[in-house]
Amino acid sequence: MSLAIICPGKDPSSWIEVIRNLEPELSIQVYPEINDPDAVEVVMLWQHPPGILNEFKNLKLVSSMGAGVDHILKDQSIPENLPIVRIVDDRLTWSMTNYVIMGVLNFHRQISRYQKDQKRKVWDMSNPEIPVTVGVMGVGALGYDVLDKLDYMGFPVVGLGFSEKDDFNYPYYTKSQLDEFLQKINVLVCLLPLTEQTEGILNRALFEKCNPGTYLINVARGKHLVEEDLLEALDKGKVSGALLDVYQSEPLPENHPFWNQEKITMTPHIASVTNPRAAAPQILENIKRIKANETLLNVVNRKKGY
Amino acid sequence: MSLAIICPGKDPSSWIEVIRNLEPELSIQVYPEINDPDAVEVVMLWQHPPGILNEFKNLKLVSSMGAGVDHILKDQSIPENLPIVRIVDDRLTWSMTNYVIMGVLNFHRQISRYQKDQKRKVWDMSNPEIPVTVGVMGVGALGYDVLDKLDYMGFPVVGLGFSEKDDFNYPYYTKSQLDEFLQKINVLVCLLPLTEQTEGILNRALFEKCNPGTYLINVARGKHLVEEDLLEALDKGKVSGALLDVYQSEPLPENHPFWNQEKITMTPHIASVTNPRAAAPQILENIKRIKANETLLNVVNRKKGY
Repeated sequence: MSLAIICPGKDPSSWIEVIRNLEPELSIQVYPEINDPDAVEVVMLWQHPPGILNEFKNLKLVSSMGAGVDHILKDQSIPENLPIVRIVDDRLTWSMTNYVIMGVLNFHRQISRYQKDQKRKVWDMSNPEIPVTVGVMGVGALGYDVLDKLDYMGFPVVGLGFSEKDDFNYPYYTKSQLDEFLQKINVLVCLLPLTEQTEGILNRALFEKCNPGTYLINVARGKHLVEEDLLEALDKGKVSGALLDVYQSEPLPENHPFWNQEKITMTPHIASVTNPRAAAPQILENIKRIKANETLLNVVNRKKGY
Repeated sequence: MSLAIICPGKDPSSWIEVIRNLEPELSIQVYPEINDPDAVEVVMLWQHPPGILNEFKNLKLVSSMGAGVDHILKDQSIPENLPIVRIVDDRLTWSMTNYVIMGVLNFHRQISRYQKDQKRKVWDMSNPEIPVTVGVMGVGALGYDVLDKLDYMGFPVVGLGFSEKDDFNYPYYTKSQLDEFLQKINVLVCLLPLTEQTEGILNRALFEKCNPGTYLINVARGKHLVEEDLLEALDKGKVSGALLDVYQSEPLPENHPFWNQEKITMTPHIASVTNPRAAAPQILENIKRIKANETLLNVVNRKKGY
């Protein structure tokens, strides 16, 4: 029995350190140096080369190295009966919520305006607050925490999701009520999972329906956003600014127009970073469970895509 | 009976509009056009010329136009038996807390680092969070709300005040324990009232006791901070940066070194702005009460200074 770590372009050393500490006996093989593919019964994946799982005849479990699984599900070659699990980590939620609240407050209190004023030595006390209503697309663990904390802070919030909900603590809209949802808000937070239904959802048609001056925060996946449509919406003023953590292509290419767009605040996919110390024990627990034929933790529903 | 509004350099028109709506019959005189000083029984003050109250023989009540009263108490000529009241407004607290949390999150998530990276087209995912423990000096209504909301968000917090407290929801230090308090924290928020005891409290001696890299947020009064000592502490690295809303002299003079200090983020005294719609009814209620000889709202304790 061997665990294969396949995360090209990502340094696995902190993962290996944590796993070795917890399970010194466990055999670990790190891609591309997989010398004994037949021993591999569990793989940990982040942006793996599609099709590679076919090399492991005895594979029993696939685990994402993060909360997202879109990078796994897009590989059509993964056998249907192979269970896929993901990481659920309160610390991920905490970081994500802090990042989103930072974006909401910086818009509400106009930090970029005051930064410009400071540079020009301007003292302008007028209209210090932009009233905000925050709409969160995606109301899973992450989205719900954002709604809860902003509500506690006294901000009006509404949520939008893809399934009907009978019981929800905040005003709730389904996808068919997108127009109505957008009319209520002037800060739009995307925390959706990336699925066929949500890819490209932040597009020209959506921006056209926004209240003028709406602020966008995308902390989900780059593929939710049609990037050229955002640039157009910023030019038109439908969107007044954006805080972006994710992009169609990462790292963002050097010639990408986002770097120089003053109305966009960019961070390099760090809103919420999986901590191996929190995540590795979950993977080890699932290895124990699959051996003992017990129910796995955090199994992905492939139809839903998360 | 006449109400005098004395706030040189501040536009009183929105106050007058709100008061006229609520009490159309009330006589209002606005400084410097006080034609009938003997009729003045109540004054509303913001940065009044010291000594001016002696012109009103029949004065019965002094009201601040905001939460602070240091601008009133520094005028030694105000008769001792004249009651002074101030504004207590939930909305003031709400704005102040939002501003402080914005400062805490921008430090914790290093927004200024990412802004620099964006300008230089640098994609650096390393160490995205600075762990923070937030210390709040001043634990009245404002300070307590900051502690409560940051605690709800999951940040460790501690408070410091000038009186002993038996029962406080968070770790609490008195002024004699300042060193210990500073050792616990790396974000220092000043929300103290300005009194003889607190003037200049943010000085070189205090900065020397801070953990290296401590971040300062001053939203109280400019006179709490010895400005040249902050510049020195920034140079030495004892303080890594500051978010300042108040200054020794306001508006900040054009030749002031703060404008060009990159480690300082400045706003023009807008962290919390008194809203006449919330504040004017409190002043009118106190006018009613003084006429009826009833207990006044939000009376200032002159000895304490707030």
